[in-house]
Amino acid sequence: MLYFIGLGLGDAKDITVKGLEIVKQCSRVYLEAYTSMLTVGKDALEEYYGRELILADRDMVEQEADEILKGADVSDVAFLVVGDPFGATTHSDLVLRAVNAGIQYRVIHNASIMNAVGCCGLQLYNFGETVSVVFWTDTWRPESFYDKIKKNRDLGMHTLCLLDIKVKEQSMENLMRGRKIYEPPRYMTVSQAAEQLLEIVQNRRERGDDLAISEETICVGLARVGAEDQAIRAGTLRQLASCDLGGPLHSMIVTGHLHPLEVDMLRLSATTPDALQDLQMTDSSTYTS
Amino acid sequence: MLYFIGLGLGDAKDITVKGLEIVKQCSRVYLEAYTSMLTVGKDALEEYYGRELILADRDMVEQEADEILKGADVSDVAFLVVGDPFGATTHSDLVLRAVNAGIQYRVIHNASIMNAVGCCGLQLYNFGETVSVVFWTDTWRPESFYDKIKKNRDLGMHTLCLLDIKVKEQSMENLMRGRKIYEPPRYMTVSQAAEQLLEIVQNRRERGDDLAISEETICVGLARVGAEDQAIRAGTLRQLASCDLGGPLHSMIVTGHLHPLEVDMLRLSATTPDALQDLQMTDSSTYTS
Repeated sequence: MLYFIGLGLGDAKDITVKGLEIVKQCSRVYLEAYTSMLTVGKDALEEYYGRELILADRDMVEQEADEILKGADVSDVAFLVVGDPFGATTHSDLVLRAVNAGIQYRVIHNASIMNAVGCCGLQLYNFGETVSVVFWTDTWRPESFYDKIKKNRDLGMHTLCLLDIKVKEQSMENLMRGRKIYEPPRYMTVSQAAEQLLEIVQNRRERGDDLAISEETICVGLARVGAEDQAIRAGTLRQLASCDLGGPLHSMIVTGHLHPLEVDMLRLSATTPDALQDLQMTDSSTYTS
Repeated sequence: MLYFIGLGLGDAKDITVKGLEIVKQCSRVYLEAYTSMLTVGKDALEEYYGRELILADRDMVEQEADEILKGADVSDVAFLVVGDPFGATTHSDLVLRAVNAGIQYRVIHNASIMNAVGCCGLQLYNFGETVSVVFWTDTWRPESFYDKIKKNRDLGMHTLCLLDIKVKEQSMENLMRGRKIYEPPRYMTVSQAAEQLLEIVQNRRERGDDLAISEETICVGLARVGAEDQAIRAGTLRQLASCDLGGPLHSMIVTGHLHPLEVDMLRLSATTPDALQDLQMTDSSTYTS
């Protein structure tokens, strides 16, 4: 049996009791370590689980999947994923490979940012399509996520923005020379995401577009959701561009239509002491009583 | 401290290790029992947790919240919720009451249907607004969820349909007479939801509307997600109307634009042996290679 086990968000103890029992009994345990991260590292997990973990990076999952599946038809293998196992495409791929190889699989679910984000007080069923925000480079500055946010806002929906993670990336030079030298990991902050979005807003304004988002649109920045030191800040897009929410991982929400109960909840994490007032004043178009 | 602890989906062992430790140490433990259910009952949870649980029905949470909060400023109280604590509006209300009473709170997240639904192979970030489908009566047959599904489909998005739960409902007669006699709990099945949706499709067709959904639209029925005996069936809306997925809870997805990898995953749970073929043939408008 191949077990896909969600580790949830936070630290080693956010695994479920069922998940932990399975980890302890499997012959091999892989840790997927490129689509998300916990606030603790591999060593802390190994110590708590009492098991050696095999780090599965993107190369291994995509190119050496047979290695992961080896023997899973006769013994139990666990594949650990931060959050829930079905956030990222790649794990569907691993499921299909397992099924094609005649290997049974089972999923042990857990919290992921896709549902835990509800802790900020915005209703999950008022979210539209989730978008990804990637690091811009000098030559590649995609704006497509803005258009998705616009579509959501046109329907009154909130948008969860998942922020870029660069792990084991090679510089262009190292890639071209075939050198397996990797850049330090980078995690996009709420501030960086807000900056990029502000730049797009400015571009669109200059083009004379009908603006779906402005500097005053209410957004929510979230950091380390589920961990002891999680941080949530609600404020205008402009305010979030200059806020420091500390270490990774960060996510951002661009709000749509706000229900009064949602506004009350956002006030609990407002960026400024008087943002309680701001929340009603600055973006009244999206607020109805 | 007031702890909101998600129990996840499935059974007693789907609580996180962190959640279980807190449950064991709290002075009082409430179990919210009206917005969802596990495959095991209160007794099984009490035995596994080694704690007495106080059942918190809708009346208690909405009208006697002070009782739940009592003493939470000086000792620890746990409020257990099936799935994740922030699926339902009511818990925001309890958070706000706690904060207003000067009581700190903390959330222990877990899987909910809102993210676990990804196990069927549809990508979570391709879902639009989530809708609720309520039991129709002779006089109340709301069709608004159809319009939300249409909006999602127009954008190529999938729609998660949460199906009605009627717990501790009173008959009109008992309600009017003030008799606290409750009807047996009812949980909408995928088949019932599909029947209602088919009826709306027929109504709209007769009105000459531009149809967003037809009898051949690919849908996914899910039952007891996360439990040992979970069931997932992908098929046409018409096929799902006559499928029996067993006991509660059920949910249904109306698909939007399907990515090839999503189609491959759905084939694993197709309603008929040749539905592998059907999936490409019957709804080709939503399928691109």
